[in-house]
Amino acid sequence: MKEHPKIGMIGTGVMGQSMAGHLLSAGYTVHVYNRTKQKAEPLLEKGAVWFDQPGKLAEQSDIVITMVGFPQDVESLYLDSDGILAHAKPGSIVIDMTTSSPQLAQTIFEHAEQKQIYALDAPVSGGDVGAREARLSIMVGGERNVFEAALPIFQKMGRNIVYQGKAGAGQYTKLSNQIAVASTMIAVAEALVFAEKAGLDPFEVLRSIESGAAGSWTMSNLGPRMLKGDFAPGFYVKHFLKDLKIAIEAAEQLGIQLEGLRLAKRLYDQLSAQGESDRGTQVLYQLLKQQG
Amino acid sequence: MKEHPKIGMIGTGVMGQSMAGHLLSAGYTVHVYNRTKQKAEPLLEKGAVWFDQPGKLAEQSDIVITMVGFPQDVESLYLDSDGILAHAKPGSIVIDMTTSSPQLAQTIFEHAEQKQIYALDAPVSGGDVGAREARLSIMVGGERNVFEAALPIFQKMGRNIVYQGKAGAGQYTKLSNQIAVASTMIAVAEALVFAEKAGLDPFEVLRSIESGAAGSWTMSNLGPRMLKGDFAPGFYVKHFLKDLKIAIEAAEQLGIQLEGLRLAKRLYDQLSAQGESDRGTQVLYQLLKQQG
Repeated sequence: MKEHPKIGMIGTGVMGQSMAGHLLSAGYTVHVYNRTKQKAEPLLEKGAVWFDQPGKLAEQSDIVITMVGFPQDVESLYLDSDGILAHAKPGSIVIDMTTSSPQLAQTIFEHAEQKQIYALDAPVSGGDVGAREARLSIMVGGERNVFEAALPIFQKMGRNIVYQGKAGAGQYTKLSNQIAVASTMIAVAEALVFAEKAGLDPFEVLRSIESGAAGSWTMSNLGPRMLKGDFAPGFYVKHFLKDLKIAIEAAEQLGIQLEGLRLAKRLYDQLSAQGESDRGTQVLYQLLKQQG
Repeated sequence: MKEHPKIGMIGTGVMGQSMAGHLLSAGYTVHVYNRTKQKAEPLLEKGAVWFDQPGKLAEQSDIVITMVGFPQDVESLYLDSDGILAHAKPGSIVIDMTTSSPQLAQTIFEHAEQKQIYALDAPVSGGDVGAREARLSIMVGGERNVFEAALPIFQKMGRNIVYQGKAGAGQYTKLSNQIAVASTMIAVAEALVFAEKAGLDPFEVLRSIESGAAGSWTMSNLGPRMLKGDFAPGFYVKHFLKDLKIAIEAAEQLGIQLEGLRLAKRLYDQLSAQGESDRGTQVLYQLLKQQG
């Protein structure tokens, strides 16, 4: 690969914008496309080059990164007749960093391979703050030598960058992450609702329990927000629900029962039905408290 | 209270033995009783004084600590006609450090009060290692001034010592802790079973996810043991199941639904039925893997 590859970034929402910003700061030429052009403006002001269509962007880029919303967006971007794979150059690398389906990642990899394009799936964790501070965890699937070629780019955006195996492995790893988050959220919300209903001071309960065997990132970071009624989104209910759906489909394909995951999906569906989709995931606490 | 109170310790199992040992090392006179005398021998060798009956021990002690197995043991020790409350001196302090029912703690408090005996409920977390290294978390219910009188004793056994409110509050706090542990254990076991069934290297998955939003004490400490098939007991399935039962009863009395807690209870009941009661709680991973 060239020493100064041209990088295309498709999707300049909260995450993509920070990530592309780090690449610009590092001196890369950055091409951008976004469904709503307005959201790309801050990057254009910093020197990014605008493209009207994903296919045109792909034609002119050595590496194409996608960071969009849903698997169907990813599918259409890569596989449509005017999409990325129809236009990307042989020898280029395409990297989907959206949390999406492992099977779709495998399909994209296979289509890319036929055209001598190298595909990686590389979803992230760490949220908007992690993206802004360039300390995302990046979980990568695809061929190892392609991972190594892309590593300098990943290092501009994240810190904990781990090669997880063949195509789809990045997505499977991210789903493992979300499966763990799902029941840990239930754990913290139930413990705090119980403490409050028992008449305790739940902040004092946190002080007793967060540093021991009951402790978790969720307890220390979202527990206090639950108790203060601060349901502002760090991570949106609607995005979490998307991930839970993908995880359940993947678990079914693997033939495994994950009852905690199913319980979480049911609870977040209830939140969605109550109009809480744009709240942070910690709003689960409010639901359990109402049910109590 | 006297400056050098005589302390009675009832229950010299793994936990009680370490705790009484710290009190002996600190120079207190320690009286001991245990259903099986043999388990008290190491303490007797260090200078503890043996008593044949809990009542006799209580008569001769300024502070009585109990650390036994089940709520029914606690009830019988305190409330039987030849038990602690029938024999303890007015002005003495009785402290149950067993994980037991909040209602029983309240009942003991009320009976004690009638005899001018001061009762605390002070369950712990931190397990055998925490007890051995004198860094237990101690969660205390009862009257605040009694808590303060007993604090020097607690400080010999633990580090994170928090007054949680009136009688029963210590037990409610410990149950909150166990409720959080329950679904966090499901979270970690499900995430790792999913990773393995997806064909990933689950140790690499841990490396990607344990330091982020999915992270927990359980993930970092029990995740690797799950993957190595190390199901030696840090905390026994049979003891955890006891705590889950007490928590479900308490939640029912408070009128709250805790579906994650109920799921955990169902899964640990299955483990118990499979003869896994004497394994560590991380054996949940094995059950989910079999089901998969």
